[in-house]
Amino acid sequence: MKDMQISHETRMANAIRALAMDAVEKAKSGHPGMPMGMADVATVLFNRFVLVDPSAPKWPDRDRFVLSAGHGSMLLYAIHHLLGYADMDMDQIRAFRQLGARTAGHPEYGHADGIEVTTGPLGQGIATAVGMALAERMKAARYGDALVDHFTYVIAGDGCLMEGISHEAIDMAGHLGLGRLIVLWDDNRITIDGDTELSTSTDQMARFAASGWHVQACDGHAPDQIAAAIESARHDPRPSMIACRTVIGFGAPNKQGGHDVHGAPLGAEEIAAARAFLGWDHPPFEIPADIYDAWHAIAARGAAARAAWETRLAASAARDAFLMAEAGDTSALPAAITAWKAKLSADKPKVATRKASEMALEVVNGALPFSVGGSADLTGSNLTRSKGMVSVKPGAFGGDYIHYGIREHGMAAAMNGIALHGGLRPYGGTFMAFADYCRPAIRLSALMGVPVTYVMTHDSIGLGEDGPTHQPVEHLASLRAIPNLTVIRPADAVETAEAWEVAMTSTATPTLLVLSRQNLPTVRPEHTDENLTARGAYLLRDPENRQVTLIATGSEVELALKAADLLAEEGIVAAVVSAPSFERFAAQPRDHVAKVLGTAPRVGCEAALRQGWDLFLGPTDGFVGMTGFGASAPAPALYHHFNITAEAIVAEAKNRI
Amino acid sequence: MKDMQISHETRMANAIRALAMDAVEKAKSGHPGMPMGMADVATVLFNRFVLVDPSAPKWPDRDRFVLSAGHGSMLLYAIHHLLGYADMDMDQIRAFRQLGARTAGHPEYGHADGIEVTTGPLGQGIATAVGMALAERMKAARYGDALVDHFTYVIAGDGCLMEGISHEAIDMAGHLGLGRLIVLWDDNRITIDGDTELSTSTDQMARFAASGWHVQACDGHAPDQIAAAIESARHDPRPSMIACRTVIGFGAPNKQGGHDVHGAPLGAEEIAAARAFLGWDHPPFEIPADIYDAWHAIAARGAAARAAWETRLAASAARDAFLMAEAGDTSALPAAITAWKAKLSADKPKVATRKASEMALEVVNGALPFSVGGSADLTGSNLTRSKGMVSVKPGAFGGDYIHYGIREHGMAAAMNGIALHGGLRPYGGTFMAFADYCRPAIRLSALMGVPVTYVMTHDSIGLGEDGPTHQPVEHLASLRAIPNLTVIRPADAVETAEAWEVAMTSTATPTLLVLSRQNLPTVRPEHTDENLTARGAYLLRDPENRQVTLIATGSEVELALKAADLLAEEGIVAAVVSAPSFERFAAQPRDHVAKVLGTAPRVGCEAALRQGWDLFLGPTDGFVGMTGFGASAPAPALYHHFNITAEAIVAEAKNRI
Repeated sequence: MKDMQISHETRMANAIRALAMDAVEKAKSGHPGMPMGMADVATVLFNRFVLVDPSAPKWPDRDRFVLSAGHGSMLLYAIHHLLGYADMDMDQIRAFRQLGARTAGHPEYGHADGIEVTTGPLGQGIATAVGMALAERMKAARYGDALVDHFTYVIAGDGCLMEGISHEAIDMAGHLGLGRLIVLWDDNRITIDGDTELSTSTDQMARFAASGWHVQACDGHAPDQIAAAIESARHDPRPSMIACRTVIGFGAPNKQGGHDVHGAPLGAEEIAAARAFLGWDHPPFEIPADIYDAWHAIAARGAAARAAWETRLAASAARDAFLMAEAGDTSALPAAITAWKAKLSADKPKVATRKASEMALEVVNGALPFSVGGSADLTGSNLTRSKGMVSVKPGAFGGDYIHYGIREHGMAAAMNGIALHGGLRPYGGTFMAFADYCRPAIRLSALMGVPVTYVMTHDSIGLGEDGPTHQPVEHLASLRAIPNLTVIRPADAVETAEAWEVAMTSTATPTLLVLSRQNLPTVRPEHTDENLTARGAYLLRDPENRQVTLIATGSEVELALKAADLLAEEGIVAAVVSAPSFERFAAQPRDHVAKVLGTAPRVGCEAALRQGWDLFLGPTDGFVGMTGFGASAPAPALYHHFNITAEAIVAEAKNRI
Repeated sequence: MKDMQISHETRMANAIRALAMDAVEKAKSGHPGMPMGMADVATVLFNRFVLVDPSAPKWPDRDRFVLSAGHGSMLLYAIHHLLGYADMDMDQIRAFRQLGARTAGHPEYGHADGIEVTTGPLGQGIATAVGMALAERMKAARYGDALVDHFTYVIAGDGCLMEGISHEAIDMAGHLGLGRLIVLWDDNRITIDGDTELSTSTDQMARFAASGWHVQACDGHAPDQIAAAIESARHDPRPSMIACRTVIGFGAPNKQGGHDVHGAPLGAEEIAAARAFLGWDHPPFEIPADIYDAWHAIAARGAAARAAWETRLAASAARDAFLMAEAGDTSALPAAITAWKAKLSADKPKVATRKASEMALEVVNGALPFSVGGSADLTGSNLTRSKGMVSVKPGAFGGDYIHYGIREHGMAAAMNGIALHGGLRPYGGTFMAFADYCRPAIRLSALMGVPVTYVMTHDSIGLGEDGPTHQPVEHLASLRAIPNLTVIRPADAVETAEAWEVAMTSTATPTLLVLSRQNLPTVRPEHTDENLTARGAYLLRDPENRQVTLIATGSEVELALKAADLLAEEGIVAAVVSAPSFERFAAQPRDHVAKVLGTAPRVGCEAALRQGWDLFLGPTDGFVGMTGFGASAPAPALYHHFNITAEAIVAEAKNRI
């Protein structure tokens, strides 16, 4: 390259390469291969197409750029630095991968402006982007193209496309015809173990085409080819995949094209050789003014587009509705839930909590015009669809209910994308046992702090005959283990309504609702305006001089109450605690905790494993629950077989007094 | 159908339909749609092709039949009953989905002969079958086609093909060219929510073809078309997918073809109509003798094939090696590990436990000719490949190392399939944070009780700069929550060697090894012949009159030892416990537990969340660990930042004394 005439656009790309190799070298850790290989593609994309405004990084109608191959984070940080994001100065680039820096090893949502999503776990980016592109079309249908009309661009690597979640994402996007989604595949034919031919032979272009995508290929180091492909992709009504044939680590003359360049510093010698090869004679962490100017011109184009959009917004009849949704205004919900609880407390229905959830959703969806429901093909089982909801369909995005298909992982990631896009509030259902299928995306909801709501029904052996594959026993423990995830297992219709209020008013924490298949009586004795579920655990029965405290969740609260009755017959005074959310309880003030737990011996009951119950139980307390996998039989037979009964609670209680 | 001449083969299929609809009706629960829709395909498959011997259900060279769409379990049970499996008499069919019956809601491995794999969680069957088909070719390469030469047949539904894991499986099978894998897709165009066009538009045949499969379509109710397609599939060198166009619930005249027939009893009226439609005038749970005869003839054909195989086995030079591998004889391993430990105890290396694992694998793979390694594209990071291992490649199956690609879920399911096939003992690696990606398959390893070994490296914030997406904090808790899974987090090279012995000698429990990226000193003070890791937890330092017990795992044992030294400087006597496996410790006799735990106050230390530590710690004991997600920085900076240090342990200890 040294002897060639180097175009200005290529020098813009070389700035990315230089920052990437120098930052990785300084950190002695990181991935130079991808940023150097995809620098030309990314530069053309931003230079000629992307509309973002670094001075207004949350501008709702900005193009979304998702670096699905998150290990190439220096590509993103370099671009943000060059564009002039205020929080991405050169000190941040120098501090790549250091404690407290915004420039984490993989892009972390919330750490710096312009990072649209946390990526790193492969395949999550492309699947999240599907949610963003879907949200874009849904909001365009609601508010008009004048307010919502942008593209979602993704850079994905071989890893992203080998992960199973990519299939769910690709199938969903192709089915829905998300034409503003453009995936730039870094076709470098290298994986960590070696050449891609070690482990895959899939014709990716044929694969995408099979799912209804527009596919093209280009030389990923030929700017005009890249631009022509992107231009064509933007005009095709289908989602587009562009196979960008690249050389990994392009610019490092002795290492490029090999798998060693993927994830380790190049070393001083190779960096010097790269500088010579690229004709880049600037010291580390120095960028010439004309290159900054060129990148800042991209930002200026975005700022102009944003200003035009602001004008359109001010003139739009949809302005107030749009802004209310963008702000996520849930102020109408609490009063509606309180009124609904009052009715429930009077009616005392005996319904499954999944049914109670459906009933609560009438209130929730009535109060929140921006809620968006869905299910992974279990609508009639999860009961996630309230009356009047309209299905989102290809070419008809005005609805508010999404058929995610048999794709739990794709659903969860898409919900992250919808929530991240802003202005829509997604919830989606599946069987709780299949929380495992979407766990990596649930973890990202929690890590990013996006308030997605997971509706997990069929929550224990109580689902009965489908047997141990479908019966969660360890899932409550494993989900409660995820930091910043609120798990709520309501005991009745009242707690279910309260749980929905907690979920839909949360701002930075996802919520996972754990709901029964089987009917449960109303256990809340009388109406309270206060949301007691939000306290995590509270006294359902609070007798004086309690001799034992029975603590249960969900479907087992009924058993604890019955056990208390049986104990009363024997003259033993038992308090009963309903504990729908361990995380909420752990965050309560000490006086509430002390009042609830008391000082008497305790017995916990939950049709699940004991792990996690040390929040409530010490080594001398009792527990009635599961000790292993479930079985296939009608639910009552299973409760009897596994000895999860009021009588078992009574026996444990008497042993402890 | 009533007025048509009903062929004998169709009557054989109608026997399946009758048993399925009657058993579901009696259970008042279950899925009649799939068994009735696929009865013709399954009948043709068994009648004309499958070689199994119900009198020797574990015959190693039997054809494998995997019902990936496990909700159609009555198809499998009906077939096994009709073939004459001794443990599948009509009482079992009548007891479908009842407590203690072998006929669980979904097929459960080990519950009855002939059930090759637990299915139900969609997509697992097809992905497990890829492992079976791969094992078949690997064993054929080792022992010759005379001993190993069979097909693996799969029935998969739309759900299986929508799940992401199917992509990983299909890509892997196509890449490896597993020509004896034949997938019969139940192309009924119905999902639970309605028509498949609600949620998918993928051209499945084009999709499979893009991954190198042979694809065909047939009318799933036309026996000769079905047979011709299977015949062609058997002769094509590529894996084959046959799209079988079927009517879900075929035979129920008023309900067939709709989504209501998928998962609910038909009802007495519709069953009567179906009997008339099918010309099946036999009472429930009665099969005419000529139909039994026809199915028994299939079994007789299989028995003859088995007898011929026994003759070949007796004459084979590979007989002894084959039988030793089939028996999974690991008797050579313990002595080899003990000798290796003696050397380690002398050398006291300071190495990462992932490196110690690589060293131990030299011993393991040297002692066990049937071990099979692999990694999800992280060979150089997981260090799963010992010297001399040979890569398995398309057309070259003689190796013992599998490049699973960036497919954690596919790898785990394939390992289940390899283990279930018998005669090979698989282990495979990925980063521990990505245990979440393969969790559904890990759960099935545990539920089925197959001794797969998961090698999970980069086990905590100790991995450093890659940041919170890659740092497990909740994973130890969530994996320990899975019943019948042994999680081992060794502290040094000695414990790592012991962990491998535990893993590779386990017969009915999978093992998950949790290994560090960073170097760790040898903490075991002297050699013991006994495998102390197998005790779960043991005393590294056992002073008289201990005032505090410090308990740690993995990389934090070093910190506990240092803390004990610091405490000793202050005249405080501390015992130190290394606790590599909570599950193993929980299974120890009381005297061991009492000796290890002692009566002094305790402090636990693990660079992870506290959940699960109630095995060791009461509410008044201390814990030094994580309380939320990690961060991106060099590992030493992170340990300091999160206050996981010897000094923190000392402070906790002093607070408790």
